[in-house]
Amino acid sequence: MTPANPAVDTVDIAALLERGRAMSAPVLRAAVDRLAPPMDSVAAYHFGWIDAQGRPADGDGGKAVRPALALLSAEAAGATPEVGVPGAVAVELVHNFSLLHDDLMDGDEQRRHRDTVWKVHGPAQAILVGDALFALANELLLEIGTVEAGRATRRLTTATRKLIDGQAQDISFEHRERVTVEECLEMEGNKTGALLACAVSIGAVLGGADDKTADTLEAYGYHLGLAFQAVDDLLGIWGDPDSTGKQTWSDLRQRKKSLPVVAALAAGGPASEKLGELLKADAESHDFDTFSEEEFAMRAALIEEAGGREWTTQEARRQHAVAIEALHGVDMPEQVRAQLTALADFVVVRKR
Amino acid sequence: MTPANPAVDTVDIAALLERGRAMSAPVLRAAVDRLAPPMDSVAAYHFGWIDAQGRPADGDGGKAVRPALALLSAEAAGATPEVGVPGAVAVELVHNFSLLHDDLMDGDEQRRHRDTVWKVHGPAQAILVGDALFALANELLLEIGTVEAGRATRRLTTATRKLIDGQAQDISFEHRERVTVEECLEMEGNKTGALLACAVSIGAVLGGADDKTADTLEAYGYHLGLAFQAVDDLLGIWGDPDSTGKQTWSDLRQRKKSLPVVAALAAGGPASEKLGELLKADAESHDFDTFSEEEFAMRAALIEEAGGREWTTQEARRQHAVAIEALHGVDMPEQVRAQLTALADFVVVRKR
Repeated sequence: MTPANPAVDTVDIAALLERGRAMSAPVLRAAVDRLAPPMDSVAAYHFGWIDAQGRPADGDGGKAVRPALALLSAEAAGATPEVGVPGAVAVELVHNFSLLHDDLMDGDEQRRHRDTVWKVHGPAQAILVGDALFALANELLLEIGTVEAGRATRRLTTATRKLIDGQAQDISFEHRERVTVEECLEMEGNKTGALLACAVSIGAVLGGADDKTADTLEAYGYHLGLAFQAVDDLLGIWGDPDSTGKQTWSDLRQRKKSLPVVAALAAGGPASEKLGELLKADAESHDFDTFSEEEFAMRAALIEEAGGREWTTQEARRQHAVAIEALHGVDMPEQVRAQLTALADFVVVRKR
Repeated sequence: MTPANPAVDTVDIAALLERGRAMSAPVLRAAVDRLAPPMDSVAAYHFGWIDAQGRPADGDGGKAVRPALALLSAEAAGATPEVGVPGAVAVELVHNFSLLHDDLMDGDEQRRHRDTVWKVHGPAQAILVGDALFALANELLLEIGTVEAGRATRRLTTATRKLIDGQAQDISFEHRERVTVEECLEMEGNKTGALLACAVSIGAVLGGADDKTADTLEAYGYHLGLAFQAVDDLLGIWGDPDSTGKQTWSDLRQRKKSLPVVAALAAGGPASEKLGELLKADAESHDFDTFSEEEFAMRAALIEEAGGREWTTQEARRQHAVAIEALHGVDMPEQVRAQLTALADFVVVRKR
């Protein structure tokens, strides 16, 4: 058991997230401005800077957990937060590249309370702008021109490959009758853990940290990512649409084999078996797209009865604990450690 | 006028292309093997290594001009061709990433005489595998870990950004009534010139060439790319489907504002005006998808009558000449110069 750190309670999470957002925003905007029209406008729409008609907007650009982590990452290596900014922006670009492509592949029509890019600007723009953001991420890092920047780009590229592997696994799971809890965790580690891990190492690498330090920071980020995703999976079924910006029962509508579903199916017992039969019938049903709220609510209740909700809640706590433990493997300023700890706490209790 | 180089006539183009293919193939295959299933199989299908049922195939993997250029690029800097191999593979991965995404965006159903990936494996796999090949390209270069590899990756990233810009321009042109010849050339420079330019510099950069040498090699590659694209535009209208593997009048069916079309529209005169009226009506026509062969043949005849075919043929020759001229700005072994010259000659006379 790690002794409690009283400094954690004094961390202002909102201010920490806002610092990440504020310091990375101008660099992110300048990067997006490099894109040829109409990709610059499509990207600006995606980030919430303009609306579908091209008018300035002050949209929800996401929680901005990754930029906050990238700046703390630089500070963990004893550098100024400014050193982490290109890393923060590069990770944010890769994250948004994946959102643009995943929303199209998954047929998601809403994100951050707004129509998704493919819905407003068509599939071709979603593909193109996603590609462009991925390329921009590498460009931004590589034009720094240092050995550290090369190492940072390599880590980002590895994380991006895992992220793509994870999306491939996620898609393949939707067509499979059974997925084990282990397979689901591997998928989520690729899809969410790898890029969060990179966010936590990239600032340190840009600040000159060695590979061992970067790897240990990545261990914290990876397990933080798994905790983050477990919470996301809970919100994907039981989240409040007003908070999440997604439809009710969002993940069930998409037949996602997320952690609560997979854990419920693995649990055994009457609710688990009934759920298994229902989901099997759903996979072959032609009426699935016209299912009522009640039909999804019934499936959610079975998942809960079979223990999938409780297991996933506990899993988030387990991954949170492993993440915090990893933090102790790196020598860093105590204030930075307190802030990273507080961010991990925030990720587990968030409602959106 | 550059004096003729008698060594050019003795270059065996088929052997040069085969060398590029043979030396890069094992590295390309090993890279693709890193992908998580089913992306590895989807990529293998795209490259023609297996058929749609997963059986081994010996498909047409393309002309392989880029790998041949990347190996010569290393030799131009005095290095062995082996030094250029990771560059050859990285460029080939980026090229194929763009083919996978472009075929989907453009709705192209055939490539290299076979159904395209999105047609066989669905749009999601085309997006995912494209993304994965792009990431692999960077991974392959960056894991070399040298300063030169970082510089090579930066050049490849810049080229990829231009390639994406070019595809964005190409798509936007399809919805516009008029496109100038200059706009078309800019688009083609981005879409084709930039990556060919990178193929010609990447081996040299990996071999330790300075930026000035790399830039001059890129000038050759860029104009070679424009010559290549001019020929592609001619083949896209008048090419033999048995050779190109595409439909008859392929670019006309897609309403592509390619060079012959744009030049014909800019030429003025009766044929040019009639063509303009027809294409304007086509853009609003609901029957376009059911047009007969004769209707496309008539449009092709008007393009030719207005001078678009002849202008594009001459443009290929002009760009070829500029490319050859640029070659003389780099000090390199005469045999390599002869091979690069012969490759430029080949690009202009090819039938596929």
